[in-house]
Amino acid sequence: MKGERIGELIGIYRDGLLEDTMPFWLEHALDRECGGFLTYLDRDGSALCTDKPVWVAGRFIWILSKLYNTVERKQEWLDAAGHGIDFMLKHAFDSDGRMFFRLTREGKPLLKRRYLFTETFGVIALAEYALASGDDHAKQRAIELYNLLLKYYKTPDLLPAKGFPETRRAKGHAMPMILIATTQVLRQIDDAPLYRQMIDESLNEVFNHFVRPDEEALLETVGPDGERLDSPEGRLVNPGHAIETSWFIMEEGRSRKDDSLVREATTILDWSLKLGWDKQYGGLLSFADVEGKPSPMYHHDMKFWWPHTEALYALLLAHHLTGEDRYAEWYERVHDWTFSHFPDPECGEWYGYLHRDGTVSSGVKGDFWKGPFHIPRAQLYCWKLLEEMQPS
Amino acid sequence: MKGERIGELIGIYRDGLLEDTMPFWLEHALDRECGGFLTYLDRDGSALCTDKPVWVAGRFIWILSKLYNTVERKQEWLDAAGHGIDFMLKHAFDSDGRMFFRLTREGKPLLKRRYLFTETFGVIALAEYALASGDDHAKQRAIELYNLLLKYYKTPDLLPAKGFPETRRAKGHAMPMILIATTQVLRQIDDAPLYRQMIDESLNEVFNHFVRPDEEALLETVGPDGERLDSPEGRLVNPGHAIETSWFIMEEGRSRKDDSLVREATTILDWSLKLGWDKQYGGLLSFADVEGKPSPMYHHDMKFWWPHTEALYALLLAHHLTGEDRYAEWYERVHDWTFSHFPDPECGEWYGYLHRDGTVSSGVKGDFWKGPFHIPRAQLYCWKLLEEMQPS
Repeated sequence: MKGERIGELIGIYRDGLLEDTMPFWLEHALDRECGGFLTYLDRDGSALCTDKPVWVAGRFIWILSKLYNTVERKQEWLDAAGHGIDFMLKHAFDSDGRMFFRLTREGKPLLKRRYLFTETFGVIALAEYALASGDDHAKQRAIELYNLLLKYYKTPDLLPAKGFPETRRAKGHAMPMILIATTQVLRQIDDAPLYRQMIDESLNEVFNHFVRPDEEALLETVGPDGERLDSPEGRLVNPGHAIETSWFIMEEGRSRKDDSLVREATTILDWSLKLGWDKQYGGLLSFADVEGKPSPMYHHDMKFWWPHTEALYALLLAHHLTGEDRYAEWYERVHDWTFSHFPDPECGEWYGYLHRDGTVSSGVKGDFWKGPFHIPRAQLYCWKLLEEMQPS
Repeated sequence: MKGERIGELIGIYRDGLLEDTMPFWLEHALDRECGGFLTYLDRDGSALCTDKPVWVAGRFIWILSKLYNTVERKQEWLDAAGHGIDFMLKHAFDSDGRMFFRLTREGKPLLKRRYLFTETFGVIALAEYALASGDDHAKQRAIELYNLLLKYYKTPDLLPAKGFPETRRAKGHAMPMILIATTQVLRQIDDAPLYRQMIDESLNEVFNHFVRPDEEALLETVGPDGERLDSPEGRLVNPGHAIETSWFIMEEGRSRKDDSLVREATTILDWSLKLGWDKQYGGLLSFADVEGKPSPMYHHDMKFWWPHTEALYALLLAHHLTGEDRYAEWYERVHDWTFSHFPDPECGEWYGYLHRDGTVSSGVKGDFWKGPFHIPRAQLYCWKLLEEMQPS
């Protein structure tokens, strides 16, 4: 990638982050009346729903703290993160130490999920905030919550079984994937052999059970020992998810200076682009069937924001770590599609939900899944990586 | 509607039913090896998944029996229904008398749902089959199952609470709606004051809690006493669902010779077409927000088969019962869109899942929701109603 292009891209990501994405969320999402965040927002930032999704809150606290830790020690960011932490510690935890998924505006519980993803976003919020603020209580809560979620993860009998495990057992790619990323954040504030061990275990599980070289795919769902399930679930590939995993693993390879791990990660990226890129309209499909059969997901061919943000960073990182030009070429292809379809020129921030042909399906800026996370994270990570890539 | 057009439409529905829909399912869906039905089918009728959805099985047994009861005493239909009943009675019931939602090909349980819809389809299967076969055991099982589902419905504490009812309670339109239709089937084989009472209760609940004349909509979700919820769920309208309800209620009005009930039902139809018809591309949208805000459903603007089949019958029935020409005009509009987009000219049967613009999103003929039900039911009901409408 040429120095001039790198400079141009740095401007796009930095300005997008600091002048568009973060101001949008900081202007609209802080609930000054009841505490916490209002993140379920219409295109113009007005609230479509005052219920508070705890995933989104954890992710917002994380990015605010991460910006404070890596860009500038800006009081506004630390204050907003602390505003979120206060509400989270007050309202988002159940008496068993686990977290709720959805709260009312006032903080009363509406939903608690069986799965452990809310807790993983709680860990990254608390850990990154602890690093930003030096708050030892937040640090201890992060470590405790991480250990609690591992206890539940390793002792499935602690939670009532879903379905009939005596008939069929299955497991998802999301847990080992998110454990890699969660542990990468937590180990910034704490040092224990457990962290390396958990990442190693997760990497082994991803590569031995979910990665299928014979089918050139990372599958979403397999049997307990990696058995291939002959069903729509068993054939399901989520290209954006696999691409996100690929850069989590590239980062691990980079941090360990392990080129073979980087190579294994870029192979997942190669497969996922091949399966997920829409040859007709461009953009990344939401789901694919590894045998090319119809997908069971209604929105299988819709274009969502987050696979594109993940692909942008994964491709830049793959280009940087391998030096291969084809990743720079792929980057430009994804860049063109992303920046010509997702940003909302009128109200700011990005659309999240497009039809297959790239037209807008819904203009919401936030809901239970979309919020201040994938876009600012990609903007920050691409910006900082491009600075590393810049010829001196 | 002119006699010539009526004659033409009779041919379309009768031939579609007897020469396309039913042969497709009878050829592909009977599992001669393990019993029961394989209904999760690709475009060409090959199995995409051998798991057995119990909703679909109950609905297939119902239509087979209904055809036997109303069209012709064809042994093939009765045998296929009996083949389904055998598997259902052997495998689909849990020890508490409730039903599983999803079974393996061999009949082992994979999933049981908290809600009671599987049981409602069990009731219509058993009741219609009892009427066809004269099987007293099936009749008794239908009545028992109906009473069991009412017990669970009326005693919410029998099932573990979903979410946190102490924070917020909500209820869905689907239960009173489906109880009307289920009871209409069951009362064919049994006579008890309970049936009229349940339909009256359900009608009251629909009209007093879900129908909102001020907003001209039938809402999907309200508070326990019909409170309007200010959230995306609370604003959600499912036009196809509301249209289906409208004809269930028109049928009740027709059977009671109650014109004012028919009028109340056609008002729901009017509102639902106004909210649900896509002025840009034609066809019925899957979801609408009563305030015109963005819908939380990814597939909100996709065109599904079943709202169209329900609208075809609802409009013919509304035209027949009210004599109003506008229903005939609306009928032709929905007819044109439906028949120019849904039927699969190459492999037979209909596509189920189209994009907003009418292009095919997925060619599956069956899954956990689509199967031999809405299409053959509409074909049968439209055909028989058109015969009534035909000038002698």
